[in-house]
Amino acid sequence: MKALVFHGPGSKSWTNVPDAQLVDPTDVVVRVDTTTICGTDLHILKGDVPAVTAGRVLGHEAVGTITEIGSAVTDLKVGDRVLVPAITTCGKCGPCRSAMPSHCATVGGIGWIFGHLIDGTQAELVRVPYAETSVHVLPETVTNEEAIFLADVLPTGFEMGVRNAAVQPGDSVVVVGAGPIGLAAIRTAGLYGAATVIAVDISESRLKRSIAFGADMTINSEREDVRARVLEITNGLGANVAIEAVGIPETFDVCTELVRPGGRIANVGVHGKPVTFHLEDLWIKNITLTTGLVNGTTVGTLLELLAHGKIDAGAFGTHSFQLDQMVDAYEVFANADTHDALKVVISR
Amino acid sequence: MKALVFHGPGSKSWTNVPDAQLVDPTDVVVRVDTTTICGTDLHILKGDVPAVTAGRVLGHEAVGTITEIGSAVTDLKVGDRVLVPAITTCGKCGPCRSAMPSHCATVGGIGWIFGHLIDGTQAELVRVPYAETSVHVLPETVTNEEAIFLADVLPTGFEMGVRNAAVQPGDSVVVVGAGPIGLAAIRTAGLYGAATVIAVDISESRLKRSIAFGADMTINSEREDVRARVLEITNGLGANVAIEAVGIPETFDVCTELVRPGGRIANVGVHGKPVTFHLEDLWIKNITLTTGLVNGTTVGTLLELLAHGKIDAGAFGTHSFQLDQMVDAYEVFANADTHDALKVVISR
Repeated sequence: MKALVFHGPGSKSWTNVPDAQLVDPTDVVVRVDTTTICGTDLHILKGDVPAVTAGRVLGHEAVGTITEIGSAVTDLKVGDRVLVPAITTCGKCGPCRSAMPSHCATVGGIGWIFGHLIDGTQAELVRVPYAETSVHVLPETVTNEEAIFLADVLPTGFEMGVRNAAVQPGDSVVVVGAGPIGLAAIRTAGLYGAATVIAVDISESRLKRSIAFGADMTINSEREDVRARVLEITNGLGANVAIEAVGIPETFDVCTELVRPGGRIANVGVHGKPVTFHLEDLWIKNITLTTGLVNGTTVGTLLELLAHGKIDAGAFGTHSFQLDQMVDAYEVFANADTHDALKVVISR
Repeated sequence: MKALVFHGPGSKSWTNVPDAQLVDPTDVVVRVDTTTICGTDLHILKGDVPAVTAGRVLGHEAVGTITEIGSAVTDLKVGDRVLVPAITTCGKCGPCRSAMPSHCATVGGIGWIFGHLIDGTQAELVRVPYAETSVHVLPETVTNEEAIFLADVLPTGFEMGVRNAAVQPGDSVVVVGAGPIGLAAIRTAGLYGAATVIAVDISESRLKRSIAFGADMTINSEREDVRARVLEITNGLGANVAIEAVGIPETFDVCTELVRPGGRIANVGVHGKPVTFHLEDLWIKNITLTTGLVNGTTVGTLLELLAHGKIDAGAFGTHSFQLDQMVDAYEVFANADTHDALKVVISR
């Protein structure tokens, strides 16, 4: 089969590899009909994720069709159209049984294994371990181009942003960073009744797009004083919630300054270095801060919303490619600003 | 009247000041029958709290008897024996109506005003603003020597430690710092069913006392590797909960290392400087971190437990003084280790 193979920092190719095949009785093999590229894949290519070694097939998001099932699989069948989410769930360990498969102990303590510890989804076929507890059979009304964004981006913004921050009806919610993950938080903040969703970014095109995704107002943090504007919008109180969707110290810091006493800060960004946390100011402020890797425990909920037309997941896909245009898709996604791209949809 | 007056950093005296008197219709005046000293008072004396200016009467904890009531007070009467808690609650502002009087907007955004922004409780009389929404009339079965520790220390450990950390039945709870506040968390962790309460400190006498307060085991962090011991105790998983009850970067840092994925860290310590927060490790760990100043919203609950003999609040008091021995009481409390003191009880 063909697959996108990582050859070490800075090097990849769409090339021939042995076909994905069943290994364990709980596996299935899925023919990849639709996949996409995540910011994490770009980090891997830069060499930022040393656990990913040369020869690995990348990718951790797919919609596809089951072509083979392991001997222990009883509730899935060949031909089923399934969503393969970023997180693998054994279903048996402590974290999985506590709805936290992001730390599935069976697969090594981090539930993200595709394109990381095992071969991934940017390929013609993918081996899917613990299939019955991991994949979701898709309803007919949901298209591949919609479902693919339920593999990672939409649940990440929803679970690690909106739900971790315990957004409640009437809340003012500031989302710092209007890339795909920030937009996923913006798109889903209304599900818990946010009164005001404020997008913060330095890119006018991303801010413009955030309005289409449901933001009520935008702040360009290069041109405006974010703290002053948020205070003005919130009657001098500060926001109820700040969601960090960038992953650098500066944006984390601003989140801690934007919330009112009693406010909640949800970190969604992937950070590569420590931050200075101003406990000398924050110890008294009655704040709650959360972090985390997506669990995917809301994928069923999001599918239900999608099936009923309540979430326009397809809006994340701005550029389409065929599988054998994988390298072109990477070029567009890696230079998203140049191409005014958000997410790429890569189909069979 | 006599009162403990702050004369600026390093200087205080028990001296004559004008009698406390009614100012606003919602005030009462309370004759102080019992008071105590808080670590915060020691910080003020070092000059760490610049909002406290020379001439201020210190103290923010009292049990006493109402001697005068303002014209708007209908539900309290002269002669009532009341607990005057650390936090003043106007009852009308947004934070107070959201059960967060620690940030009462009416009194300036921080509900701690006694011995801070107005004269305090280390005096023969104290003026108590917003009395009807702030004080608690004491049941007969509760002694002054018990109730005094519901003014601050016990609700602080309970609310900002145990409740903020959302301790649940079966949890492993590590309390870092076994001073009065840490002991308050240790004492109350069992109310939510903690399975294992582990006290961490560098003082053997404090660790010994922590066992009397309900800790199941202790770790001396100068002699043992705390991380290794906690992993050993928790089957290699880490603790469900870590409560920071010291207020320095090192102890905060260790708390972030002791919890398992999905764990909760409750900061209770008063911090004077920023900490380095290792988001490069923690972003993926699905942790929740909370901070805050006590609200006192559980004082009623704690009084009920006290009245039914479920909490031995009197155990905090190790040394007793008369009001006119206030300076001696400070000397003992400021040198608690030398005197093997925990909290001092100062009575009329």
